[in-house]
Amino acid sequence: MANGSDEKRPLILVTNDDGIDAPGIAALASVMDEVGEVVVVAPIDEQSAVGHAITVHQPVRVRPWNFDVPSGTAEAYAVTGTPADCVKLALSTILKREPDLVVSGINHGENIAVNVLYSGTVSAATEASILGIDAIAFSLCTNEAYPFDMSARYAKTIVEQVLKVGLPRCILLNVNIPALADIRGVAVTRLAHSRWEEGFVERRDPRDRAYYWLTGHFVNLDDGDSTDVEAVRTGLVSITPLQHDLTAHSWLEEFRDWKWEANGSE
Amino acid sequence: MANGSDEKRPLILVTNDDGIDAPGIAALASVMDEVGEVVVVAPIDEQSAVGHAITVHQPVRVRPWNFDVPSGTAEAYAVTGTPADCVKLALSTILKREPDLVVSGINHGENIAVNVLYSGTVSAATEASILGIDAIAFSLCTNEAYPFDMSARYAKTIVEQVLKVGLPRCILLNVNIPALADIRGVAVTRLAHSRWEEGFVERRDPRDRAYYWLTGHFVNLDDGDSTDVEAVRTGLVSITPLQHDLTAHSWLEEFRDWKWEANGSE
Repeated sequence: MANGSDEKRPLILVTNDDGIDAPGIAALASVMDEVGEVVVVAPIDEQSAVGHAITVHQPVRVRPWNFDVPSGTAEAYAVTGTPADCVKLALSTILKREPDLVVSGINHGENIAVNVLYSGTVSAATEASILGIDAIAFSLCTNEAYPFDMSARYAKTIVEQVLKVGLPRCILLNVNIPALADIRGVAVTRLAHSRWEEGFVERRDPRDRAYYWLTGHFVNLDDGDSTDVEAVRTGLVSITPLQHDLTAHSWLEEFRDWKWEANGSE
Repeated sequence: MANGSDEKRPLILVTNDDGIDAPGIAALASVMDEVGEVVVVAPIDEQSAVGHAITVHQPVRVRPWNFDVPSGTAEAYAVTGTPADCVKLALSTILKREPDLVVSGINHGENIAVNVLYSGTVSAATEASILGIDAIAFSLCTNEAYPFDMSARYAKTIVEQVLKVGLPRCILLNVNIPALADIRGVAVTRLAHSRWEEGFVERRDPRDRAYYWLTGHFVNLDDGDSTDVEAVRTGLVSITPLQHDLTAHSWLEEFRDWKWEANGSE
């Protein structure tokens, strides 16, 4: 292990959904190595759009992986599973002590608005938060080739702040970094109301049977203030606090007034 | 099509995550057939624990399926994809008009508390809600063999109420029905704060390489009022309104006071 066993350095679990050999996780692990002791537990190959899937019908395999960081070689494992699997496995089985932080990314491509629901990157951080560990998901807002070094610097600054102050229980951060040379600053945002307009393209196989490719385009339905979409579009790093309690608390009281005529209702 | 083309009957899309041949979806489609015109679009095989996964790296195939309901044969399609894929495909490509409601289930096994994040059943309803359609997920709270007929009666009553009143924008319902002969009534609930204590069991393959099965047990961390866990444990049908905006709105203002020292911040 690169950093010896200095118990005072924070222990940082690094994962992603683009796979353990993706350049984004290399950049993230590299700056985390400046902050604390890094352990990498990540999918062996790309797991994009898996959402919060977990692997229950087949076993997962874990393979030690060669993973270089500036200070030497990080402890690293490739897992035949989803990002949520990686976090569960790391926290329950691999790590020798509870980590101080779980970071996921840097994803190649933005995870904003409704897309967080489909994001393996975010689900890894969500899983950590459910299990009681502070967690941050990082994404670089481009699908083109683009260096990860500047977004990794932002990731480091944000991580240092979170390690210093701590997050409230059950809240994680979702960070999206524009692919720009001159980023204008940092904005605290909410998820924009949005959806995908689908989008299945029909193709025919050689036996003339139809199959369909999911396609479509993202539609921002939200022109209100402080959205993540607006922030990244205007050159700001977007930081959105997320929760994993999906209860629609704002509507609960009103909903209690509904009269239920179900068989056997009181 | 069983019910002809009576445009005044509500159009109800029925899906699930246990697969199109599961008994729970047969029971649900059967009672929906009493309420409106039923179209079934469901995974060709079991998709449990897929969360909000969508299929982007391979195409999906759609096969017409024989699906009997009391009034005859329902229009039905089996899809080689996730529950969220089924809803996207149905709304964009299969259905000739927008449905009045999407129902998902009846899942064989409860979907309560933190488990909704892993649930394909709930994610199908979530996807419908994102796309602007009222949606309800139904689950029967047992992993044992148990008849679905009584839970289907409750599903019908709840569907009739929702069709009459309508749900607010971006809110869906998650319904869990106890596997009991004498259900005590209906409770409007919130998701209990909970988590899984993992749980990987190591096994060795014939070449003596380790692999791991995910296991563990559900832990309810919430002894507050009105949780879904408490409701089903005390013999009540639990109805939880869910939202798909994961922003932690309650903490946004406080979080805005954080000082960000990121490079380039304002």
